Amino acid sequence: MAKKDKAFVQDITPMDQDFSRWYTDVVTRAELMDYSDVRGCMVIRPYGYAIWERIQQELDRRFKETGHKNAYFPLFIPESLLKKEAEHVEGFAPEVAWVTHGGSEELAERLVVRPTSETIICSMYARWIQSYRDLPLKLNQWCNVVRWEKTTRPFLRTSEFLWQEGHTVHVDYEDAQKETLTMLEVYRSFVTDYMAIPVLCGQKTEKEKFAGAQDTYTIEAIMHDGQALQMGTSHNLGQHFAKAYEIKYLDKDGAQKYAWQTSWGVSTRLIGGLIMVHGDDRGLRLPPNIAPTQVIIVPVAAHKPGVSEKANELLDILKAAGIRADIDERDQSPGWKFNEWEMRGVPLRIEIGPRDIENGQAMLVRRDTAEKQPAALEGIVASVNDLLAQIQQNMLDQALALRQAKIRKAATEAEICEAVDAHKGFAISPWCGDRACEEHMKAEYNITTRCMPFEGQEEAEGAVCPICGKPAKKMIYWARAY
Amino acid sequence: MAKKDKAFVQDITPMDQDFSRWYTDVVTRAELMDYSDVRGCMVIRPYGYAIWERIQQELDRRFKETGHKNAYFPLFIPESLLKKEAEHVEGFAPEVAWVTHGGSEELAERLVVRPTSETIICSMYARWIQSYRDLPLKLNQWCNVVRWEKTTRPFLRTSEFLWQEGHTVHVDYEDAQKETLTMLEVYRSFVTDYMAIPVLCGQKTEKEKFAGAQDTYTIEAIMHDGQALQMGTSHNLGQHFAKAYEIKYLDKDGAQKYAWQTSWGVSTRLIGGLIMVHGDDRGLRLPPNIAPTQVIIVPVAAHKPGVSEKANELLDILKAAGIRADIDERDQSPGWKFNEWEMRGVPLRIEIGPRDIENGQAMLVRRDTAEKQPAALEGIVASVNDLLAQIQQNMLDQALALRQAKIRKAATEAEICEAVDAHKGFAISPWCGDRACEEHMKAEYNITTRCMPFEGQEEAEGAVCPICGKPAKKMIYWARAY
Repeated sequence: MAKKDKAFVQDITPMDQDFSRWYTDVVTRAELMDYSDVRGCMVIRPYGYAIWERIQQELDRRFKETGHKNAYFPLFIPESLLKKEAEHVEGFAPEVAWVTHGGSEELAERLVVRPTSETIICSMYARWIQSYRDLPLKLNQWCNVVRWEKTTRPFLRTSEFLWQEGHTVHVDYEDAQKETLTMLEVYRSFVTDYMAIPVLCGQKTEKEKFAGAQDTYTIEAIMHDGQALQMGTSHNLGQHFAKAYEIKYLDKDGAQKYAWQTSWGVSTRLIGGLIMVHGDDRGLRLPPNIAPTQVIIVPVAAHKPGVSEKANELLDILKAAGIRADIDERDQSPGWKFNEWEMRGVPLRIEIGPRDIENGQAMLVRRDTAEKQPAALEGIVASVNDLLAQIQQNMLDQALALRQAKIRKAATEAEICEAVDAHKGFAISPWCGDRACEEHMKAEYNITTRCMPFEGQEEAEGAVCPICGKPAKKMIYWARAY
Repeated sequence: MAKKDKAFVQDITPMDQDFSRWYTDVVTRAELMDYSDVRGCMVIRPYGYAIWERIQQELDRRFKETGHKNAYFPLFIPESLLKKEAEHVEGFAPEVAWVTHGGSEELAERLVVRPTSETIICSMYARWIQSYRDLPLKLNQWCNVVRWEKTTRPFLRTSEFLWQEGHTVHVDYEDAQKETLTMLEVYRSFVTDYMAIPVLCGQKTEKEKFAGAQDTYTIEAIMHDGQALQMGTSHNLGQHFAKAYEIKYLDKDGAQKYAWQTSWGVSTRLIGGLIMVHGDDRGLRLPPNIAPTQVIIVPVAAHKPGVSEKANELLDILKAAGIRADIDERDQSPGWKFNEWEMRGVPLRIEIGPRDIENGQAMLVRRDTAEKQPAALEGIVASVNDLLAQIQQNMLDQALALRQAKIRKAATEAEICEAVDAHKGFAISPWCGDRACEEHMKAEYNITTRCMPFEGQEEAEGAVCPICGKPAKKMIYWARAY
């Protein structure tokens, strides 16, 4: 190991030594976030926020393509409004922040800072929707939400976080169900294609579903340490909220009917997943599609005549071709810069010095494999685009391989624990469908069900539940979760 | 007046009859917003939010071009942190919302919901900035803020609103002042070029400046009723916050120095200005550059063969050319649709029916002038782009003419009142520079100073203050303000 590598590794705790410290080291050293003076709230620094902007841009485009519009609803929800849907308030009341005073006056009614916006949005939908002609109504909101968490971790669980929440209204169950699964697919394809994170898609159990939903669907990813991260959820709300908030429409047949609803969301938590799936002991690794900076140009021997000019010329060429490129001309050594940009996970580095320029080439260095290869300056845009596509694919392949290695079939309680503990991953097993078995696993081992996958359910036929021995109804994933 | 016009006018109170009701009618009928169940908080409906998205997109581009990056800071500010800068807390404490409980527990320290973020951002800057090499630091944040207002009005003054706040740090006064004025110019040019709103640029008085600023600069617009709307402000914070929050840097000369700062912001209030400058008795009028929909296609006799096909073909052609076009194929009469889209302020309407198609043309109707003109379908993109540019220019010219007609010179207190009351506009007068004269005008007539303009200050020389008769130091604008 070269000297600079050793020095570098001292900055970031190795993953295998302490995954949790590795994670904290990466998010702080790469300047993705910082801790604030407010309990459980973090600051998203420019580099972290740039990743969020990339996520927003691409998801927003997909939401609009699927017929959604953005709107904005109030941050505050009156206590009485929150309490209308019984399951919902039970799920959220313990973890909300309460506003009790405005200026120097005590409020007549306390307000909660939204933990999610079903209640305030439903109260408006009840006014706006009169007829079947008003449906479907498909809105989305980008905003901040607050959940007063006891233990917090950057990006994964913070008292305040940024997210989007879609809220739609439909004439019947079928249309609501179609929307629920369409949005799950929007999430799955985005996370797979853009973030290079393969996910397990399926349904949550009754115990794990969203407070107030009829059914919750989820995309779940496996982190490097084998723990699960719920990356996004899509809920078929049935008529639960429509009945609580009186969202009715006049149907074609002249009858007043309760509407059917969905809601779905992803948050800045996605950034935590990105780090924990792709990161390594040198820091972040960002897939090119989501990277704020795809290519960093580092001039070598920049004081020599013509180097800075040529490097900037190259920058202009890449930018003009729509590549998100940048140049590092700070007064630091090339080695320091190499480390710095590797730590920040920039997918491709271009080194260009006097000898390269003489030979009409530049050196391309991949972050994913550390491979170096020269490329002719003539036609370099094609070489760069080609490499970026290869990196994107390779990172997805690596993540797929990681996932495959971490999932084990389990037929007994001991095998579930072994898959989770010894093999640091997920177990898939048959399951009787009883909440009692989930509660047992949670209480004994802190292992939870992640989802009943859409695929492979036929394997449950004739099998028994490894916990209680009763006939199985479903195949289900088990893991420890963030 | 045609029958449909009469019916339409009944929906919107005429401006001259009751400007305030006219405004409320327009914002609700055009579905820009709706009132919520939360005191002083509004819902921004999709059409209103689409205007905000256009504003965000274009301003964000300009912020990034001028070297700023986005970040995100916590919603909550601990009471002790808010109180560090004396003037600032005095200005904001009476109007903040207080969070006192998290879940079922009372917090050890109360939190305010940010009314603006100088305090929380400065506490982070104090950690991040060590050396002159870290400067300038130029960040911006898009977020929601809360000010517990007693009287509220949609978009103009609401308890919660959306905005952006830029916060920058510099090595000296000069660099901070340069930034302050650069951002004021970004606002001025955006508002002029995109929103077709001419503004008066200048400096706020000591009485009217931002709580905690050294100097505040503003862009002020004149609404249709002659009242002033502060559209955006840019503050040179001097070293006030740096000293309160200990933001120091090690300079090249080896000395520790307090940094210099700026902050600047615009909000969803801009949408209120857009309505009140350009709207008329038929509803909204949106300048093409800011309009979410620039062109609405209304098929006429759409049941006749080929009409819908041709109209959709036209839609595709316009969209492919980058024009924000839409089509209205709802089951309603063309007349109803004409009214509807005029009310929503879409700059250009295209009517296309069987006879138009026969003649290879379509009818183009301007929202700004109500002029109709046929255009050949062949080459219609050029005709549309040309007309959109004309509409943009004409709306700016109209707004400029409105502004010119509403500003009067005043040499006496009576003339100031006359300019504001009888002529429903602004007065410009010399001013002694004393706060007492401002307080007198505010107390007696509810008239406030708007700004000391950058231009024309030489007129103050040798003049006297119309209120106290003392020698004038400055020329200043007076008005009633939203």
